[in-house]
Amino acid sequence: MREFEYIKRYLKPLDNSIGDDAATLANSSYLVTKDILIEGVHFFSNYLPYNLAKKSLRTNFSDIAAVGGTPYGYMLGLVLPNNVDDLWWESFVAGLKEDNKYFQVKLLGGDTTAHNGKVIISVTAFGIKGDRFIYRSGAGLGDLVCVSGTIGDAALGLLAYQGIIRDSTGRLKGRYDIPEPRVTLGQAISDFASSCIDISDGLIQDAQHICELSNVGMELHSDKIPLSFAAREIVEKKPDYIDLVLTGGDDYELLFTASSEHSNKIEEISQKCRVNITKIGHVTDGKEVIVRDKDNLPITLKNKGFVHFI
Amino acid sequence: MREFEYIKRYLKPLDNSIGDDAATLANSSYLVTKDILIEGVHFFSNYLPYNLAKKSLRTNFSDIAAVGGTPYGYMLGLVLPNNVDDLWWESFVAGLKEDNKYFQVKLLGGDTTAHNGKVIISVTAFGIKGDRFIYRSGAGLGDLVCVSGTIGDAALGLLAYQGIIRDSTGRLKGRYDIPEPRVTLGQAISDFASSCIDISDGLIQDAQHICELSNVGMELHSDKIPLSFAAREIVEKKPDYIDLVLTGGDDYELLFTASSEHSNKIEEISQKCRVNITKIGHVTDGKEVIVRDKDNLPITLKNKGFVHFI
Repeated sequence: MREFEYIKRYLKPLDNSIGDDAATLANSSYLVTKDILIEGVHFFSNYLPYNLAKKSLRTNFSDIAAVGGTPYGYMLGLVLPNNVDDLWWESFVAGLKEDNKYFQVKLLGGDTTAHNGKVIISVTAFGIKGDRFIYRSGAGLGDLVCVSGTIGDAALGLLAYQGIIRDSTGRLKGRYDIPEPRVTLGQAISDFASSCIDISDGLIQDAQHICELSNVGMELHSDKIPLSFAAREIVEKKPDYIDLVLTGGDDYELLFTASSEHSNKIEEISQKCRVNITKIGHVTDGKEVIVRDKDNLPITLKNKGFVHFI
Repeated sequence: MREFEYIKRYLKPLDNSIGDDAATLANSSYLVTKDILIEGVHFFSNYLPYNLAKKSLRTNFSDIAAVGGTPYGYMLGLVLPNNVDDLWWESFVAGLKEDNKYFQVKLLGGDTTAHNGKVIISVTAFGIKGDRFIYRSGAGLGDLVCVSGTIGDAALGLLAYQGIIRDSTGRLKGRYDIPEPRVTLGQAISDFASSCIDISDGLIQDAQHICELSNVGMELHSDKIPLSFAAREIVEKKPDYIDLVLTGGDDYELLFTASSEHSNKIEEISQKCRVNITKIGHVTDGKEVIVRDKDNLPITLKNKGFVHFI
């Protein structure tokens, strides 16, 4: 995880806005964000180009959702092995086409280069600003901490792909393959959420990103973390997997904070947007994310990533 | 060169605007472009990170210059080997900082990922539109074909790096290392140039790009191609290198067409922008770029790239 340190040390001084999921383009209604997917780091070598196309767009659109915006279009950077063939392109372009229609976005340009190496997809996506830009830095003492959908499915889906667990319905793999950016939800909360981030690095790590930029801590309750039926079944059989649920990435749900006075509004939005929203904790005056179990005892995670833990 | 075919076949149907050096963002004054640099394809493994930073920005700013715009800022995508260290970052960021100041641009955000592989820099650059967007598709029968600066230096610089030729003054290497995007010139010609492209793939190949999109041909004269003192010295010793001058890439000069009625204006602009502009030929009703030698005989080049030649 040294890249976080390098970015903070070398690139942040050049760009004060680094830290949010997307940036604004001055004197326009545009948002812009960039996410790179690399073979062997973010996806397997035999990964379907169709899924890859969708994933590379959706991870970016999730960043746009996290600041309250609507996807508009994208620039596509492709670095491809020399032996990529028609079949690869047909599958990849089928994925692009479907998502262009689904999100009503368009390809604006790009660069494609062949090399003697792996597949790398570098998408720069554009969005249109929502009512209000949601920063990561606005979480306030006592705010509710909420998440959309269910957490941990994508990380378990990856385990299923690795043959470590069984995914009888295929839903966990499906969540890993094709995330659903919470665009409608991001727009709906944009006028009152105090902070927001999309969960790409893992629940705890992304919660920690908000804490750092907002100068706060968070107390979360592991028994409140929303699990899908498939995930619950697995965690009940092997409780250790709760670690993975808390720290695994790729869910692309929204983690946001809001003053408790908006509690009813959050329920309404949940119904209107047809997305479950779960209150999983609150903002504290600490500096860290603390997760407590059902007996209110702090959980020490084995896989901490770069996050400092109690 | 199969990527050109793939782009044409699979990506162009998704984006009619593909073909120009930069795209416009609707309802804004922004231009956007994307250029990826890959270790082993676009630069050597021991290449100075300082040069790399500048080159990755300048190749993009050259695209913005080619449509008549002014650089505004950029998103930085970095894919870096796991062993990149502080020295690498310090050199790279020094290059970024200098060019942020030189071009008055800012870093707007990005994504940095470590992997077990090569250095890949994926920049998406933004510009502000000039008076008029210069398309590649506007070249008209009888128009003058002009180039800025001198041609072939970067390709010869690369040969010098490879130890194949001597570059006693270091100027050829310097041109390969740090191109000078013709921003002021691009702006100055934007209200009358009928087409423009920046020479990144090579003079002939880029001329051919204009021909394809404008449905025209070009007749160029090899003895009119402007050479630097250093390049002329080398070509005089070994005339075969004229092939390289005509087809080598990385010069990032502007190749543009304009009606001959603007001939005097072009001279004025050359003086005002302090950039040599040379008329090297004219637009024909053919489909190909034909280069004629001083005896007016068509030259057959050994290294044609993907360009079809007489």
